[in-house]
Amino acid sequence: MQKTLPLIDDFHVHLRQGALMEKVTPSLEQGGCRLAYVMPNLTPPITTTKQAMEYKEKLQKLAPNVEFLMTLYLNPELTVEEIYAAAKAGIKGVKSYPRGVTTNSEGGIESYTVYYPIFEAMEKTGMVLNLHGEIPSDATSNVCVLNAEEMFLTHLQSLHRDFPNLKIVLEHATSKAAVDMVKSLGPTVGCTITVHHLQLVVDDWAGCCHNFCKPVAKFPKDRDALRQVVKEGHPRFFLGTDSAPHPRTAKETSKAAAGVFVTPYLASYLASILDSFGALDKLEGFACKFGRQFYGIADSKDSKVLNLAKEDFTVPQEFQYVNDAGVEAAIVPFLAGKAMSWKLK
Amino acid sequence: MQKTLPLIDDFHVHLRQGALMEKVTPSLEQGGCRLAYVMPNLTPPITTTKQAMEYKEKLQKLAPNVEFLMTLYLNPELTVEEIYAAAKAGIKGVKSYPRGVTTNSEGGIESYTVYYPIFEAMEKTGMVLNLHGEIPSDATSNVCVLNAEEMFLTHLQSLHRDFPNLKIVLEHATSKAAVDMVKSLGPTVGCTITVHHLQLVVDDWAGCCHNFCKPVAKFPKDRDALRQVVKEGHPRFFLGTDSAPHPRTAKETSKAAAGVFVTPYLASYLASILDSFGALDKLEGFACKFGRQFYGIADSKDSKVLNLAKEDFTVPQEFQYVNDAGVEAAIVPFLAGKAMSWKLK
Repeated sequence: MQKTLPLIDDFHVHLRQGALMEKVTPSLEQGGCRLAYVMPNLTPPITTTKQAMEYKEKLQKLAPNVEFLMTLYLNPELTVEEIYAAAKAGIKGVKSYPRGVTTNSEGGIESYTVYYPIFEAMEKTGMVLNLHGEIPSDATSNVCVLNAEEMFLTHLQSLHRDFPNLKIVLEHATSKAAVDMVKSLGPTVGCTITVHHLQLVVDDWAGCCHNFCKPVAKFPKDRDALRQVVKEGHPRFFLGTDSAPHPRTAKETSKAAAGVFVTPYLASYLASILDSFGALDKLEGFACKFGRQFYGIADSKDSKVLNLAKEDFTVPQEFQYVNDAGVEAAIVPFLAGKAMSWKLK
Repeated sequence: MQKTLPLIDDFHVHLRQGALMEKVTPSLEQGGCRLAYVMPNLTPPITTTKQAMEYKEKLQKLAPNVEFLMTLYLNPELTVEEIYAAAKAGIKGVKSYPRGVTTNSEGGIESYTVYYPIFEAMEKTGMVLNLHGEIPSDATSNVCVLNAEEMFLTHLQSLHRDFPNLKIVLEHATSKAAVDMVKSLGPTVGCTITVHHLQLVVDDWAGCCHNFCKPVAKFPKDRDALRQVVKEGHPRFFLGTDSAPHPRTAKETSKAAAGVFVTPYLASYLASILDSFGALDKLEGFACKFGRQFYGIADSKDSKVLNLAKEDFTVPQEFQYVNDAGVEAAIVPFLAGKAMSWKLK
């Protein structure tokens, strides 16, 4: 069996810096990607238009055929003037991280009200607010990684109420509660879903560092809700992989870095996983159309298509690179060594 | 500040085999232990009185001052005759593992009714049924490591109803639901609580292989329930550490072995952790009395006491040993490198 597909739009991806960036960025094309919505959590984070443009230039050289959409990191130093400058330069969004919740999020937000002038400027200029939707864990109020997303949803609701024309994306949703909330809100609220959250439940990352990411995969019923909304073909739910490469040494250690790496084999994962729960016919909308529609990005003029074949593809055990110290290193990709049922030709 | 304590009774411990056994078993005394209730999940599992007695002899030589209580592994080959023989030989309990749930549990049980003749013999002879209280994960019915214990509790309830005089211990409880259930049942139902489940929540093992164990630590409210029942001094809840050593190499890898290792520093962990939530005055009941009372084991004639001092004790980074291949290896103990507030003198 064969299937053709337009090239894929990844509305949430981490492309890193230095040697890792140089190896990972070209692999976007290998995975079948034509659009990469790039996260700003570098060291230091991308907080200015200038930084974003410099980063974009580097990425574009590494993957000339990919359309890179850039974001700024929401932080207290961000000004309304910078938002206008960013919008003018074509920067698409501003990413909000709750403090301390994920990689390089130490400068993240604690309360949204101080940012209301920023959001107003974003609303006016058509920029998108990208939310890492988790509140920090707090044992005294029973908040932990399992309910941190659900507990965040009232913030999403309030932001949408206060800025009904601001486009907001709840990133990498993992729970039924999140799906239900996004569905209940207006047309300016979208939601990305990763490949790995369509596949994993909590058992899969318990003791398995390569499946550990933030937000963590939840209960089977939560995965069911994510799969269901993809099967419905709901146009406000679209692909954002949150692909987040870390070297094996940062994973197989006492405190594993959070993140799953899918970029180089994206088309194969997507077709195989959606097929596994009967949603292969929804792949094109989910991965190639709905995100573009939500963001208001013109259809690609690219006439290239992906040719997928229903045949075994074994995910490589390692994605090798030479790190900044000049030492051979490797990233363990998602489902390393496992057989996928669809292969990108 | 100083505190004296009788020696500690650990009503659930894994002492392993070979080189690991030879190193771990003497560390019972180092940790302040006088009684070890020994789990039978060896390779092959301990299923006969003969095996149990041979294993006990080895352990006794390694730690002459410790009282070892032995168990058999519940399995379809176990006969009523063997139960009578085991009871006569002084074997205290039979351990039930759900199939595939933890280390070496591939031969575990799937349904209890086939074991009713065994349980009847155990009831008659005063043997104790030790339950690993989790059902196997099953995504189609939303069962995962987070609710596997709660979903098991109806089995505990039925077993107690059908064998009201059989002593049953729900091992290593991790959830409020389990605490509530055990409290609601009669005087023949007891419950062990580990040191690490009084300390950890899900965030602590997310990406942290050395805190990963089965059953996994749950929500903060679950930890609160465990702490609360210890603070109450409830006599049917007592210490069983589930100390389960694995070499570092089996933890810091793509699929970490489940288990937390506490044996050598047990007294220090116990005093420090119970003190942290205001239960130091309940330490003696929890760790030195209630288990003995439940099992009907005479008070130790041992006049030794543990002398604890309120001073910093840093848990060593490693517990070193030479493995069966003659190679230097190490176990990373619980809270390695962290400062405890109580020290065993």
